Amino acid sequence: MRPSGRAIDQMRPVSLELDVARHAEGSCLVRFGDTHVLCTATVEERVPPFLRNTGKGWVTAEYGMLPRSTNTRTPREAARGKQSGRTLEIQRLIGRSLRAVTETDAMGERQVIVDCDVLQADGGTRTASITGAYVALHRALQKLVAAGELPRLPLREPVAAVSCGLIQGTPVLDLDYAEDSTAEADANFVLAASGGIVEIQVTAEQTPIGVEQFEAMRALARAGIAELVALQRQVLGLA
Amino acid sequence: MRPSGRAIDQMRPVSLELDVARHAEGSCLVRFGDTHVLCTATVEERVPPFLRNTGKGWVTAEYGMLPRSTNTRTPREAARGKQSGRTLEIQRLIGRSLRAVTETDAMGERQVIVDCDVLQADGGTRTASITGAYVALHRALQKLVAAGELPRLPLREPVAAVSCGLIQGTPVLDLDYAEDSTAEADANFVLAASGGIVEIQVTAEQTPIGVEQFEAMRALARAGIAELVALQRQVLGLA
Amino acid sequence: MRPSGRAIDQMRPVSLELDVARHAEGSCLVRFGDTHVLCTATVEERVPPFLRNTGKGWVTAEYGMLPRSTNTRTPREAARGKQSGRTLEIQRLIGRSLRAVTETDAMGERQVIVDCDVLQADGGTRTASITGAYVALHRALQKLVAAGELPRLPLREPVAAVSCGLIQGTPVLDLDYAEDSTAEADANFVLAASGGIVEIQVTAEQTPIGVEQFEAMRALARAGIAELVALQRQVLGLA
Amino acid sequence: MRPSGRAIDQMRPVSLELDVARHAEGSCLVRFGDTHVLCTATVEERVPPFLRNTGKGWVTAEYGMLPRSTNTRTPREAARGKQSGRTLEIQRLIGRSLRAVTETDAMGERQVIVDCDVLQADGGTRTASITGAYVALHRALQKLVAAGELPRLPLREPVAAVSCGLIQGTPVLDLDYAEDSTAEADANFVLAASGGIVEIQVTAEQTPIGVEQFEAMRALARAGIAELVALQRQVLGLA
Amino acid sequence: MRPSGRAIDQMRPVSLELDVARHAEGSCLVRFGDTHVLCTATVEERVPPFLRNTGKGWVTAEYGMLPRSTNTRTPREAARGKQSGRTLEIQRLIGRSLRAVTETDAMGERQVIVDCDVLQADGGTRTASITGAYVALHRALQKLVAAGELPRLPLREPVAAVSCGLIQGTPVLDLDYAEDSTAEADANFVLAASGGIVEIQVTAEQTPIGVEQFEAMRALARAGIAELVALQRQVLGLA
Amino acid sequence: MRPSGRAIDQMRPVSLELDVARHAEGSCLVRFGDTHVLCTATVEERVPPFLRNTGKGWVTAEYGMLPRSTNTRTPREAARGKQSGRTLEIQRLIGRSLRAVTETDAMGERQVIVDCDVLQADGGTRTASITGAYVALHRALQKLVAAGELPRLPLREPVAAVSCGLIQGTPVLDLDYAEDSTAEADANFVLAASGGIVEIQVTAEQTPIGVEQFEAMRALARAGIAELVALQRQVLGLA
Repeated sequence: MRPSGRAIDQMRPVSLELDVARHAEGSCLVRFGDTHVLCTATVEERVPPFLRNTGKGWVTAEYGMLPRSTNTRTPREAARGKQSGRTLEIQRLIGRSLRAVTETDAMGERQVIVDCDVLQADGGTRTASITGAYVALHRALQKLVAAGELPRLPLREPVAAVSCGLIQGTPVLDLDYAEDSTAEADANFVLAASGGIVEIQVTAEQTPIGVEQFEAMRALARAGIAELVALQRQVLGLA
Repeated sequence: MRPSGRAIDQMRPVSLELDVARHAEGSCLVRFGDTHVLCTATVEERVPPFLRNTGKGWVTAEYGMLPRSTNTRTPREAARGKQSGRTLEIQRLIGRSLRAVTETDAMGERQVIVDCDVLQADGGTRTASITGAYVALHRALQKLVAAGELPRLPLREPVAAVSCGLIQGTPVLDLDYAEDSTAEADANFVLAASGGIVEIQVTAEQTPIGVEQFEAMRALARAGIAELVALQRQVLGLA
Repeated sequence: MRPSGRAIDQMRPVSLELDVARHAEGSCLVRFGDTHVLCTATVEERVPPFLRNTGKGWVTAEYGMLPRSTNTRTPREAARGKQSGRTLEIQRLIGRSLRAVTETDAMGERQVIVDCDVLQADGGTRTASITGAYVALHRALQKLVAAGELPRLPLREPVAAVSCGLIQGTPVLDLDYAEDSTAEADANFVLAASGGIVEIQVTAEQTPIGVEQFEAMRALARAGIAELVALQRQVLGLA
Repeated sequence: MRPSGRAIDQMRPVSLELDVARHAEGSCLVRFGDTHVLCTATVEERVPPFLRNTGKGWVTAEYGMLPRSTNTRTPREAARGKQSGRTLEIQRLIGRSLRAVTETDAMGERQVIVDCDVLQADGGTRTASITGAYVALHRALQKLVAAGELPRLPLREPVAAVSCGLIQGTPVLDLDYAEDSTAEADANFVLAASGGIVEIQVTAEQTPIGVEQFEAMRALARAGIAELVALQRQVLGLA
Repeated sequence: MRPSGRAIDQMRPVSLELDVARHAEGSCLVRFGDTHVLCTATVEERVPPFLRNTGKGWVTAEYGMLPRSTNTRTPREAARGKQSGRTLEIQRLIGRSLRAVTETDAMGERQVIVDCDVLQADGGTRTASITGAYVALHRALQKLVAAGELPRLPLREPVAAVSCGLIQGTPVLDLDYAEDSTAEADANFVLAASGGIVEIQVTAEQTPIGVEQFEAMRALARAGIAELVALQRQVLGLA
Repeated sequence: MRPSGRAIDQMRPVSLELDVARHAEGSCLVRFGDTHVLCTATVEERVPPFLRNTGKGWVTAEYGMLPRSTNTRTPREAARGKQSGRTLEIQRLIGRSLRAVTETDAMGERQVIVDCDVLQADGGTRTASITGAYVALHRALQKLVAAGELPRLPLREPVAAVSCGLIQGTPVLDLDYAEDSTAEADANFVLAASGGIVEIQVTAEQTPIGVEQFEAMRALARAGIAELVALQRQVLGLA
């Protein structure tokens, strides 16, 4: 039924490759099928102005797509001179998602910036980014603990994300680009490992979405995210 | 219990004032308590490039805040030289919400731009904007019908929006600024008159949100939006 | 004779509505006929770099038009990424006009920013802005006096402004948009209550202006501004 | 009495050097004492969008200062990424002044752009620019007439400009930078050869200006501009 | 002697990985030691304005660095709103280098854009980019030949690049970041397979470079580039 | 043989006019035939952030072209809102060239900015700029020595630059615009007075350049630069 031939509750093959970037304090190359995102975490010993001298830390994110990560080439944002609304929206989402599971008060007065750069896009770049960004953040903070700069890991629990959509009225999990282009609705779920809601963004592409459809998508997402969290834990050695 | 003293399911006084702008094809001054947004709809006889020569129409939105609509002055975006990520995110949301109830194929090859300018802000500017923008859009399209340029109104049903939040764990409806600043979660619901979901955006400000809390907020929103739609219908003479 | 049907020395109905903005330290909604400008004054306890540690204050202004304040929609400057030359020119004019009647040395080291946002435009937006901006500034400074932060009002006298033009060679007062579009000359007079010249900007739209025509416009402006100052004094309770 | 030692009605030595730029269709290096402006006129066989297919022409101007034309270095506008409000205001003034003496309907559908670049600044750069820009424009149009592309010169009469100011209450003509810095008022007069008013811009720097002072400045300007026009006519061979 | 421990004429391990990007018409991941650059070639069926309707083609390049490709994080150019001078300089160099070996007249009226994005930087990113960009361009043009859209490959010969430098006066080949930071001179050589000079850029970092030192660097570069061209030919199956 | 009729090793008439700018600490109007560049040196008592509190100085350069310095008008970079890649590349080259002969450690913690503004362009603007910029820098530093602010001139030796090119395969010296447009290769040499290499930038415009051709251009450049340095020494009174 799905363009991809997958079962409605079947995610694409997911992998999380740790420590792929030589310079970054933490890094993860996340793959959701043909969607590949390089997530790097940078620790900076300074915070945004509104936090100076508070002793509190901050986590933020930036997002970008390589010009030819996409099917047809997307003009380079640096050359256009500004980031698109979509880019800003996604990087704000990633940042909020990470902060929801971080004890920023227990990080010391430092900032972690997680860069999520899409090397190849096939749908679901924002959910893959969140899933990989958590791993990169975790690695960077682990390094601070190992170096004795933090007494313990200031993270409450993992966070991961997955998309759902409606195809011909049927809720399906983890849309690729071809599916996303034809879906009647687009939903992104960001859940904590414990199941708590971090972010939900549901958008009716054409006509309003029924409540049962929404509930079905939510159930698919819960199951998918459980898989993602299990994989995060495994690669991070937390299982 | 609430900082505002309102009951948890009590909205602020809402008003929709029609045809307040002399030049615009449709307009509405919407007030959610002390949040006041001027919504003006402009009809243009041209469409974005991707729709040229398709015979289809388009609806889009722009959003802005007057510098001193806020508690402390917000620097003017035109002077800073760019719109913030928040602004872009909100105007994309308004545009999508309007398109979800518009038969853009039946508008002719023309575009309606709805400008939502916040004259005074006290929380909930995006939900007030959507609620008022629908009214402005409706008026502008009515004018096209009256002028014989459209055979019928290309709108499926009204759309309206309201925010909910968690205050000390309790779900409450339609947060003002003081409440929003202390809320543990922020949820915006955009529903069609028939109850269908147009957009849901839920954000955990601090820690993940429980599922029951989310359900309670959704129920509050449904009731609030029913009130808003009733008011929209009344001022538009649709009741 | 005039497109508006008014006598050559007849201004449009003018109103000044005080304290219309909940957050601003001072505010005034000024109406010159169908031209409506919201003027808000913000007091900031810091000054531009060139005044730091001098003990002196500053008054400045910003100007903007809502996109659909105009007959056909004007693209939003924040979206275009820059303010037009016309906008910059007008806001510089407003700022200079206010400073000419303010004892900036007696304000303390603080700045007042007056935002003039055109809600609806029908000609004469810059003169209405100056007239309303003075009122907003006066209110904001009164509040500082009332709070004991200033020993007395650091204002020398009111300032107001009006436009004149030549229509078929005849000087007329306070042009609306239709008149302005056909006028052969455009003159803006900014005068202090005592009659002193604060700014004069005269522009020949097509051919040079005769000296007698200029003198006649100046006389019309003097009379018009006397009316405006009387109204300012009345609403401010200075009469 | 004046810082410069000049009589109150004495201009600085003025020179107009023709045809100084190898590539431009018309050019003039204008000197008002130590203020030196290079004015070049470019003829382009196209017009701004609002004039396309009307058969009418256009004249416009751009203005810039070399970074070290000024006493202390002024940051390069190209490096800052935008033109200042002052720059935009001046180039709009130059353009309007030129158009007021040009029969743009008789130019054919072409545009003349006059670039006024300040090589060295010592006050009065805008008035020197207008005076030199007219000469460059005249030369460029003469060339079109000589080439048979225009039947006659589409210029009504010369235009020139000079500044006046108040120093210790006394009106003086043609302020240099040192004088301008201490002047209580700043007035720029742009007059046609016949004496008609093209632009007047009067600004009270500190306190409002008396009417007699304004009249005295106007008289000084008339005399100064008569000298400038005589010089323009002489170098253009029109005497 | 070298910080890297390599012999003075020893390059880092180099690899060229073909067809790594799913969407691009041609792609190559090039590694010069720890410097990794993803090169993707996009074929577009349109050309820049100056070539329209000439039947000729164009090759251009863009360059970027991921924020954390570097030792300490480099702010994202898209967020800063402009590309740095260094970035522009490098992408212009890559484009010129590719055009020097391409018969743009024989490409048809189409453009190839080669994006060079640095995933990890350790010195020599511009030379690695040129070396990989040629391979990506070659692949993209091969695809056009295979599809029958071009009769033959419009490439004259391969082009590759390598850096040299002076360390304590000694010429060395292919500097990594640590070496580059201490080098007294920085030279980039772009040579065609046949040995012809495509670009030479030599920069004395501190004091002028002696002629013999320059000659020695040139000899090192010739040998290094011969190795690179052999590798290009091997992976492209041209040997 | 050359379009200009000059011998292959013949430079255009060169002149260096000292102290042409009233305000700058050092200045030089350099002419290479019809290419005229105004170079002004500004001394600022502060340095870029990376040098603060190091006691070291800095030399940097900025470059610009007047819009009608060129054959057809070039749009003003300040109006376009950014400097082109070519501009950035040239100003970086000028800055590096000057620093290669300056003992920045012996300048005190101050910065010299050399502005090179092209008044008229006929090819070779970057080489004329470097040649004139050295003179302006020298003058500015001489003034600091004369004022007792520096014990001695922190300059090692003069630096100058000239271009070469290939016309129909023949190497020629100092190309004007007409020659540059048809040249098969473009080479810019920046040499110190002692003959040391400061910068070499060679670019094959069409096909790779032979090694002998490169050597021949290098020899032409050496001779040309010797003439330029002799002239620099003469005007600076160093001979």
